[in-house]
Amino acid sequence: MTGTLIGVGLGPGDPDLMTLKAARAIGAAGVVAYPALPGTDSFARSIAADLIRSDADEIVIEVPMTKAREPAQAAYDVGAGRIAEALAAGRDVAVLCEGDPFFYGSFMYLHARLSDRFPVEVIPGITSVSAATARAALPLVARNEVLTVLPGPLESDALASRIDAAEAVVIMKVGRHLGRIRDVLAARGLVDRALYVERATMETERILPLADAPEAAPYFSLILVSKGSDPWL
Amino acid sequence: MTGTLIGVGLGPGDPDLMTLKAARAIGAAGVVAYPALPGTDSFARSIAADLIRSDADEIVIEVPMTKAREPAQAAYDVGAGRIAEALAAGRDVAVLCEGDPFFYGSFMYLHARLSDRFPVEVIPGITSVSAATARAALPLVARNEVLTVLPGPLESDALASRIDAAEAVVIMKVGRHLGRIRDVLAARGLVDRALYVERATMETERILPLADAPEAAPYFSLILVSKGSDPWL
Repeated sequence: MTGTLIGVGLGPGDPDLMTLKAARAIGAAGVVAYPALPGTDSFARSIAADLIRSDADEIVIEVPMTKAREPAQAAYDVGAGRIAEALAAGRDVAVLCEGDPFFYGSFMYLHARLSDRFPVEVIPGITSVSAATARAALPLVARNEVLTVLPGPLESDALASRIDAAEAVVIMKVGRHLGRIRDVLAARGLVDRALYVERATMETERILPLADAPEAAPYFSLILVSKGSDPWL
Repeated sequence: MTGTLIGVGLGPGDPDLMTLKAARAIGAAGVVAYPALPGTDSFARSIAADLIRSDADEIVIEVPMTKAREPAQAAYDVGAGRIAEALAAGRDVAVLCEGDPFFYGSFMYLHARLSDRFPVEVIPGITSVSAATARAALPLVARNEVLTVLPGPLESDALASRIDAAEAVVIMKVGRHLGRIRDVLAARGLVDRALYVERATMETERILPLADAPEAAPYFSLILVSKGSDPWL
């Protein structure tokens, strides 16, 4: 009997925004695995810290933040290998995932490496999109409105055409692309319809009109834009 | 001192997919409000049933399911009036919301009627999108992929052009539009890349290739389509 690979969505950062199911899965886990930037504490682990058993085995996947894909791929190869050993020994492994495992989550890279050999269970999590709109008190989409979610690193032309085709837009992974994204929105007269949300639900949360956003945004920031006929700004 | 309007996201149906924060808010609520179709039990209330205090006052908002907007608008006017009375009397009101309050949620209609007069707190919930991808074990979007969420009632031409511009597509509120949506996807060779998910995480859940989906779909059904370069089907 092999163990089950459990992708546990932790939500956006506030531990209270974990689901009851996620909290129970972490508390029951004999093996937990999570990503971390080399030399730093794991953000995922910090969300779940109060629930991890003191006798749990922990598998840390050190993922370098590089533009090239290969170093990260190699890190997931190593991490998946260690997780596979535990699964093959019949132990369940709870992988701690910021946000939702299947929404721009690194769990996908483990899933791709392991799901053909081991049973998988995924516990969905609150996305940063839901967290940001809740904290900003901004309804996102209603009725027959179209929502488009765009990664900030996309080229400006691609951002522009997709923004033009949606009523509500969320731009994720803003980081160092903030100035460029602001220019794209300014060219369409949308800066005044856009909010900047940094680290929603965390203690360091910041919510600002996009016009007042800092030049240097962290990776965990996003921009909400409404163009709908029912304006919510 | 007025009370606070609390929009409580309940998640997709499985009560275990409520957040810790939502469960606590419901357990503390002296007044709960929720929508219901006339003559039927409230789906939102059924998710939260085990947590509602036996001494809580309950405000039922009977929302007729009609194509015309006015009857529903009138129902929200009446419901908002009753909620306003409780808030004005200093009582917090927890509004029970299927899924996430600001993601195609009816909470928006109460928010629009009350947020200028009363403090509001929103507790985000797991969306049906996250629930469906978790249950189907299908990664939704990774890296720089674009996600577009489309309401099924959109006209076929609008569906088509938006599908053409995204890597991952979720079509919500499928219901009686299923046959027409399938035709739009068939015209682009995407039926084999599409999954049909009905009532994700509920006991009556069904997950099928779109080709095998029933002719009559319920409102709580959606279609997942991947066109990405990293296929997940």
